[in-house]
Amino acid sequence: MIPFQVTIIGSGSAIPSLHRAATSQLVHHNGSYLLIDCAEGTQLLLKKLKISPMRIDHILVSHLHGDHYFGLAGLINSLHLIGRIAPLHIYGPAQLFDIIDLQLKVAETSLRFPLIFKPLIPDGKHLVFEIRQLKIWSFPVKHRIPTWGFHLTEKMSETNLDEHSKESHNPFACEPSITQKGGAGLHKLNKMQFLSEKIEADVSPARSYAYCTDTAFCPDTASFIKGVDLLYHEATFMENLAKTAEATFHSTTKQAAEIARMSGAGKLIIGHFSSRYTDLDPLLEESRIIFQKTDLALDGMTFNIGDK
Amino acid sequence: MIPFQVTIIGSGSAIPSLHRAATSQLVHHNGSYLLIDCAEGTQLLLKKLKISPMRIDHILVSHLHGDHYFGLAGLINSLHLIGRIAPLHIYGPAQLFDIIDLQLKVAETSLRFPLIFKPLIPDGKHLVFEIRQLKIWSFPVKHRIPTWGFHLTEKMSETNLDEHSKESHNPFACEPSITQKGGAGLHKLNKMQFLSEKIEADVSPARSYAYCTDTAFCPDTASFIKGVDLLYHEATFMENLAKTAEATFHSTTKQAAEIARMSGAGKLIIGHFSSRYTDLDPLLEESRIIFQKTDLALDGMTFNIGDK
Repeated sequence: MIPFQVTIIGSGSAIPSLHRAATSQLVHHNGSYLLIDCAEGTQLLLKKLKISPMRIDHILVSHLHGDHYFGLAGLINSLHLIGRIAPLHIYGPAQLFDIIDLQLKVAETSLRFPLIFKPLIPDGKHLVFEIRQLKIWSFPVKHRIPTWGFHLTEKMSETNLDEHSKESHNPFACEPSITQKGGAGLHKLNKMQFLSEKIEADVSPARSYAYCTDTAFCPDTASFIKGVDLLYHEATFMENLAKTAEATFHSTTKQAAEIARMSGAGKLIIGHFSSRYTDLDPLLEESRIIFQKTDLALDGMTFNIGDK
Repeated sequence: MIPFQVTIIGSGSAIPSLHRAATSQLVHHNGSYLLIDCAEGTQLLLKKLKISPMRIDHILVSHLHGDHYFGLAGLINSLHLIGRIAPLHIYGPAQLFDIIDLQLKVAETSLRFPLIFKPLIPDGKHLVFEIRQLKIWSFPVKHRIPTWGFHLTEKMSETNLDEHSKESHNPFACEPSITQKGGAGLHKLNKMQFLSEKIEADVSPARSYAYCTDTAFCPDTASFIKGVDLLYHEATFMENLAKTAEATFHSTTKQAAEIARMSGAGKLIIGHFSSRYTDLDPLLEESRIIFQKTDLALDGMTFNIGDK
């Protein structure tokens, strides 16, 4: 079976701690590497995990709270300094472009590689991009500011796709030579260039992974990720702090487990733990009451997607 | 003698390494704490050093290359989350305000404490602010983008200052109740409110500290910091890479030592080492050829200012 794994770079929440970094994850699918969120310190944690950032071609940013993107500017800067020339694709809330653009301008830095930014589309499930054997979808979750979850669905083998379907679902089909057009530097693709319409998967997904943070309990999520093999869902609080979770648009352990149950997930991993928790076993136990196949998503752990 | 110390939080340069963090320093003067630069990861390094960020009331940012300020947004965010209400003063290039402002807006974060930003003044030496027994001055250094060095000069005891001089040299004198006017949130003081004219120190400084990074060799620096007790000067490269230093607006070990010699410094500490160097002893030896009283400014080290 081809590798399809997620490595937890950070499982903490807004206030960083020495025990848990803020949120970032690395997805590896058959030689392709995607980063999901990029908290402060991610580039150093990648070094610790002996993962070269040069291998990452796509970065998804769920929302613009700092604990999910404050490491992005540093990562971009380092990629520039260590000589990257391959395009880097970033997908996130539209205003993320303005932040990156401003930080590059004040530094008078002209990137050596093309940085291609695509805004995420509000409302509904959308195909964000696809790589050889994987489709990456976005869908809204419920947080204090616009926030997206991501659903990564494996395609059946390439031979199962006919030529027509390959082309029609390639988000780059309408922009055949972005890098040749733009060269190095920062590029923004508007919605017209972005494949914005809803698309149904044309082949049954094989294995799939879903990423849901930050979010309050949101039953709609389950409908977007039906039958997901591995679900990462935030569980910032234990159940006795359900009111705090609701007030801050976060989830409890049991709410995360409920989404796993409703979506028919194969397995659940919980994370984004409040810094108040040092012992996480009680959170795990609480989630397992509703969804037995729960694990903690701890910093540095790698999960094989599809493992039972 | 009252404490006057600098702790090196990071002594690395643009590309972060696991051995050396990027640039940040904490100055402690008799119970007052100032941060100079704030690279990615600074807030966690403060935790490792068991220094509460709540004690820091003033942050100086030398320039807008990421390895000197990418940790600032995270630090501000954490201070907000852990309940700071005391004003935080930030001094840096004018565009830093736009970056902080944008990052707070997209996060829909309204700070619980007043964040008061004052732009640094180009050209010449200026009093940036003063606290009870310390004056903090800025002066230009020579880098690819506008960059400032800082000179921290201890006042003689309070009893040596007459009432007139106390008032005329207080940068807050013309803005008597900033916090009452503005309350919590982000405040920008323009140059008219800022004490922008050149001011001569009215008492002979006792001990003093100077911070010079990032900068190419710039003899003018010596004239701004005459007789400084402790000089931190960048030494990104060894002498055999003098051309690289010149091309990238950085200094070599010998150039740092030359500035120390020209300014009549009591002691020199060098830092901002290129990530290519693992063994730093050759850099130290090279600097000592010109200025014997050189030490390496390594992460976590604390230097008493005025020690011979």
